[in-house]
Amino acid sequence: MKRRHLVGLAAGSIATTTIAGRSALAQDAANSLPTADAIVKANDVVQWRMAVSFPKSLDIFFGSAELFCQRVNTLTHGRFVITPYPPGELAPALEVLDAVSAQTVDCGYTVANYYAKKHPALTFSSGLPFGLNAQQQNAWLYGGGGLDAIRKVYQTLNVINFPAGNTGAQMGGWFQKDIMQVQDLQGLRMRISGLGGQIMTRLGIEVTMVAPDQIVQAILQGELDAVEFVGPYDDSKLGLHKTAPYYYYPAWWQPSESIDVLVGLTAWNQLPPHFQKAVEIAAKETSVVTLARFNAENAKMLERLEAEGIELKPFERELMQVAEKETFAFYGELAAQNTQFKELYQAWSTFRQTIYQWHQINELSFAQFAFPLSQS
Amino acid sequence: MKRRHLVGLAAGSIATTTIAGRSALAQDAANSLPTADAIVKANDVVQWRMAVSFPKSLDIFFGSAELFCQRVNTLTHGRFVITPYPPGELAPALEVLDAVSAQTVDCGYTVANYYAKKHPALTFSSGLPFGLNAQQQNAWLYGGGGLDAIRKVYQTLNVINFPAGNTGAQMGGWFQKDIMQVQDLQGLRMRISGLGGQIMTRLGIEVTMVAPDQIVQAILQGELDAVEFVGPYDDSKLGLHKTAPYYYYPAWWQPSESIDVLVGLTAWNQLPPHFQKAVEIAAKETSVVTLARFNAENAKMLERLEAEGIELKPFERELMQVAEKETFAFYGELAAQNTQFKELYQAWSTFRQTIYQWHQINELSFAQFAFPLSQS
Repeated sequence: MKRRHLVGLAAGSIATTTIAGRSALAQDAANSLPTADAIVKANDVVQWRMAVSFPKSLDIFFGSAELFCQRVNTLTHGRFVITPYPPGELAPALEVLDAVSAQTVDCGYTVANYYAKKHPALTFSSGLPFGLNAQQQNAWLYGGGGLDAIRKVYQTLNVINFPAGNTGAQMGGWFQKDIMQVQDLQGLRMRISGLGGQIMTRLGIEVTMVAPDQIVQAILQGELDAVEFVGPYDDSKLGLHKTAPYYYYPAWWQPSESIDVLVGLTAWNQLPPHFQKAVEIAAKETSVVTLARFNAENAKMLERLEAEGIELKPFERELMQVAEKETFAFYGELAAQNTQFKELYQAWSTFRQTIYQWHQINELSFAQFAFPLSQS
Repeated sequence: MKRRHLVGLAAGSIATTTIAGRSALAQDAANSLPTADAIVKANDVVQWRMAVSFPKSLDIFFGSAELFCQRVNTLTHGRFVITPYPPGELAPALEVLDAVSAQTVDCGYTVANYYAKKHPALTFSSGLPFGLNAQQQNAWLYGGGGLDAIRKVYQTLNVINFPAGNTGAQMGGWFQKDIMQVQDLQGLRMRISGLGGQIMTRLGIEVTMVAPDQIVQAILQGELDAVEFVGPYDDSKLGLHKTAPYYYYPAWWQPSESIDVLVGLTAWNQLPPHFQKAVEIAAKETSVVTLARFNAENAKMLERLEAEGIELKPFERELMQVAEKETFAFYGELAAQNTQFKELYQAWSTFRQTIYQWHQINELSFAQFAFPLSQS
């Protein structure tokens, strides 16, 4: 027992260091009790900065980043301190992946779909148009080999991901005018992100991708005829419900959206195993809490918006059929161009078909009967 | 720094003690760095036994108990060791709550619905007939005040619960003969648990409650005409698919089933805050992983069972309407008899209506279009 190791441990004496190599706490991973020497040596504090794609005003999104960071802190006895920053402070909202990959920030909290053009295979991490709902996405990630497959793609960018939240099924967005058929989409200037935007382009829409914190400004400047973001809670936080009368559903391009904590692989590999474990577990906890919050808050806010007079409108079945056909044609083209996309697409398609069949039996049959509240 | 605190910390020297009062690690909760003295003092190991309601052969259920225990161990550096035991070793499958409440075991892993007759208000923890699906149940627990409300009921039994898993929507079970209308249920001898069983009794069924590990024996002895358990994966693990030709859906009495880790309140209050935190976080991680496993494995097993020739049959809409009416009449009676049930029922009903409306818009509209796989 070297006495000098004890000196720095007086409460509050935080030394900011990056741990190089493995600390003595590495032993924890083996579930053997660490010796006093090992515990006392683990005196270093790792401080990381996290670039978040969402402004603080979107308090479920940003709050989830905060929850994750707090939990990692607690689980490491205050020795692994991650601080989340809103867009623009460390990286622009739509460039968080680039910053993590380039190691200009330690980690990020973002949506893979933002990077769909450059890295189409990453969209399997956030979710695809006509793809999996939140429950199915988690089933694929944790029970169907999805997470391992996605990590192989992130690895090529020197990044590792930890799914840490899902919005649930999103809304189709706010439209100035009625959309009856595919023709009504022609020339419409719409804010829509990622793969959904690319498919909308094929359907005739003029797509603009604007970061969450800049949507309202774009509308005020008359640059948009329609905008989709998330759902009642976040949309109204941004003020979108005041910009158009019609609120369309469903977002067939986002039956769910999974949010990732991204960590630079080099930094990750230098973390003691106990810190790594804390990240993994905190991410899963954040996952369940975030989805619960989106569901509870969206449900309440939809009621309020309806009371305020917004008009809910379903997309016509025919329009969705055309969109679905175009979507799978697009996937075919992507698979032909991009090997990473192709491999993931094959595994994902099989999983999707199997779980659609199961959920048609157990979940959909009940929901169809019960949700319309016609009986009780 | 007292040298004697260091002596006991040589790796491997595990002292089994129950910690009385708060350990020095209590400081962690405040997110301040513990001093060397505090860390070194935290030398005690707490060993607990967990009574599990499910046999080891049901590897998702029992595996979730194991996952939870492993994570608590890891998060406490091997200082909080919980060992899960199958039914019969510490307590019978359907008496886990009683054992935890009586402090004959430290904790348990079980389903509140098993205790519906004695404690009807507890069923809000596992889920009610014509109630919430898994996503909605989590939304209520973590975003709608449900967990706090449920804990007030458990508290009267000297127990605290941590939701740690959900099966998703269950199957209606295995039937020897075709069920066309409510009349076909008359006199049928069926294994069905909890509230669902009480409602089935009102519909004319002769209900038998048999623990998971004893169902097959009851069938072999000719005591049952029908049996419901969980879903394709677990049902076939028990061999139920060999006992009857018709597999009915949906289990309108179990649109989801949440599984609880139960802890005796006296023991809980003696845990250091860091151990308490480990329990909370491990339970939420177990929650997301368990639901994912049920979804992924049930989907695969349904495909296999269909290939083997089982016949899937939906309950008739009229039968479900009669059942729904009977269910809500029953809830009215329970609320009139039981104040705890009444309070929870009111809060739950409001939440249910709000989230049904939201999910009818965002989730159901997509699922109805996409799951039948008619388009792609």
